[in-house]
Amino acid sequence: MLRGNLVVGQSGGPTAVINCSLVGVVRQAMAQPEIEGIYGMLHGIRGLLDGEFIDLRQESEETLELLCQTPASALGTVRYKVKPADYDGILDVFARYNVRYFFYIGGNDSMDTVYQVSEAARARGYDLRAVGVPKTIDNDLAMTDHCPGFGSAARFVASAIRNTGFDTEAMGDSGPIKLMEVMGRNAGWLTAAAALAREAAGDPPHLIYVPECPVSEEQIAADVQAMYDRYGYCVAAVSEGVRRENGTPYAEGSGKKDAFGHEVKEGVIETVAEIIEKHTGMRARFDKPAYLQRSFAELQSPVDRDEAHQAGVEAVRAAVSGQSGVMVTLVRADSPTYALEYQIASLANVANAERMLPREYMNEAGNDVTPAFLDYARPLIGGPLLTYARLAKNLVPKR
Amino acid sequence: MLRGNLVVGQSGGPTAVINCSLVGVVRQAMAQPEIEGIYGMLHGIRGLLDGEFIDLRQESEETLELLCQTPASALGTVRYKVKPADYDGILDVFARYNVRYFFYIGGNDSMDTVYQVSEAARARGYDLRAVGVPKTIDNDLAMTDHCPGFGSAARFVASAIRNTGFDTEAMGDSGPIKLMEVMGRNAGWLTAAAALAREAAGDPPHLIYVPECPVSEEQIAADVQAMYDRYGYCVAAVSEGVRRENGTPYAEGSGKKDAFGHEVKEGVIETVAEIIEKHTGMRARFDKPAYLQRSFAELQSPVDRDEAHQAGVEAVRAAVSGQSGVMVTLVRADSPTYALEYQIASLANVANAERMLPREYMNEAGNDVTPAFLDYARPLIGGPLLTYARLAKNLVPKR
Repeated sequence: MLRGNLVVGQSGGPTAVINCSLVGVVRQAMAQPEIEGIYGMLHGIRGLLDGEFIDLRQESEETLELLCQTPASALGTVRYKVKPADYDGILDVFARYNVRYFFYIGGNDSMDTVYQVSEAARARGYDLRAVGVPKTIDNDLAMTDHCPGFGSAARFVASAIRNTGFDTEAMGDSGPIKLMEVMGRNAGWLTAAAALAREAAGDPPHLIYVPECPVSEEQIAADVQAMYDRYGYCVAAVSEGVRRENGTPYAEGSGKKDAFGHEVKEGVIETVAEIIEKHTGMRARFDKPAYLQRSFAELQSPVDRDEAHQAGVEAVRAAVSGQSGVMVTLVRADSPTYALEYQIASLANVANAERMLPREYMNEAGNDVTPAFLDYARPLIGGPLLTYARLAKNLVPKR
Repeated sequence: MLRGNLVVGQSGGPTAVINCSLVGVVRQAMAQPEIEGIYGMLHGIRGLLDGEFIDLRQESEETLELLCQTPASALGTVRYKVKPADYDGILDVFARYNVRYFFYIGGNDSMDTVYQVSEAARARGYDLRAVGVPKTIDNDLAMTDHCPGFGSAARFVASAIRNTGFDTEAMGDSGPIKLMEVMGRNAGWLTAAAALAREAAGDPPHLIYVPECPVSEEQIAADVQAMYDRYGYCVAAVSEGVRRENGTPYAEGSGKKDAFGHEVKEGVIETVAEIIEKHTGMRARFDKPAYLQRSFAELQSPVDRDEAHQAGVEAVRAAVSGQSGVMVTLVRADSPTYALEYQIASLANVANAERMLPREYMNEAGNDVTPAFLDYARPLIGGPLLTYARLAKNLVPKR
């Protein structure tokens, strides 16, 4: 039994359910006699390095309960690429505060941080249990069936494209082409989830463009024209990372870079809209819900919320049982109805790996998902969307 | 008692509750013995001119009920500027189909159409009851306290800015400036409604820019810098119609025009983001929810939904009682709690008038609303938003 204090942090882009994982960690930690202080680091690893901790034992159960429906990262988050020199500083803080349990809720970069901290502690002979809790709307972490945060973002994207789809259908020839830009620089999971908006053949989205399936200007224009000719309107879900045939992104290079050195992409949807107008003569309107995709708590998936919470619980269980350098994974049971098991995977297999949308989840043309993707994604959004109706439209005989 | 058929249509930009007004018309019409056929025109006045009618009596009650939670215009809508030559055609169709009741659910341009049709019928001696049903998320119709459609759009905008506000607060210095572009080319009502997101002092939005209060580049940058200095982040609601001190819109002229000859505005939020970056050195991120603002049925305001339905009911009552050339108006009762009466106003006083946000609803600096606006708008969104929580954040003593 390893006695000591716990620190937990949140990192990277927030989600609509990332606080559920925090609450799961806190509640489970409270049930462990060997865990003494339960500290939250403010703004992730930056707060850790500065010793900016809050006492999570002093938070009320009412606050914890409400946090489960509160979007974004209650502890504050950070985009900071941990430098090799930082690990000594982190371990110094751990020793000073007798931190023996370290939980970090985040995506690829954050899992690398947990891995490096775990390795540094091992090298120094400092007894530490470091466990990663997966979180990302991009759904691109390796070794897990899916990531907490994805299901809620997917529910928002599906609802949003259905709503804007009804709007576009109603406009008819007064505005028949609509695009929605969906988050995901490299992986198309969230853009693909737009397909969950469909209830019948011909429902939007009519086209889905993901980074994994490069597409030419001419093909986009031909696809849009074909859908317009067939349905009288066309609604497309376009990933912010959609690429040309040669693999270069449609996003115009802005020259700006974020803290990780990734280039900041801008203007994707404007570029695609211009291409469509140039080739078809039809003006393409668009929605860019941007940060709403990861923060729209009104559209939390109940399944996602529960799983995010449980991932936090399982992380504490793994740590208390002696695990370190691991991430909690969500493993889908091989059963006719959706069921989930929680396991762990070595962070050596997770850190900085990126899981792309498998080719078999996209159709041959690369402009729509397959039924296999729908089977994969549907359980994650937590039940059907709101029921909408269309008029039967029995025509009155012409006079 | 005027016996004959009824036609109803939907026009202009859809809303999340415009179908409620349609259902209100249909249900009330079914209760009137003098109303025979209940026809819906497809895609507004274009369908009317082409005699493209559907038989609304054949729609099931289940469909009507579900339509009340279905966004956009179930009959289809249109942006078509009626020409003087069209009125003869419209009256010919009315005579051919024995149409004696004409209801049009729409905004400024649509109310002008109802007015012109009513006048043309009077001039020709054709007995017609033409009644307008107000609809617009812009809330800019004259003679009415507010417009059905506004309350739901306001609820969406308030929720959206609160969600993206929590996201921005969590990001801290990793992304502290966030803008949201809100619909409303000339009138700032919907942008102002972002203020309903606030629960405590310092909550987003920290700044609100509307077309009625022109603002210089330097002032925007100084405002943003001041809010960042005070709160550590800054979230601003920016109208798509925001103007420079000299009155010209920040929207870059695209040269494109819509069917009404209005110039299509593009790039507002990008322009404002660039200004902020230029003057403060901080990158401004943004959301552009665009058409989601008017179609997000999951965030219908219950008050708005009921009022939209009742506006349809009252339109039929007015017509049956002999009125024509009028629009249903929503009149707020002078009472301590919110209560509404339905009246009518002559379309001569409504058509093509535009009701701007009164100056007293904005503060002296022109960058935020006043308590009077909050009192006006709060009842319309139909109850509080989802309850969110923040951590108490009791600091752990430094070691």
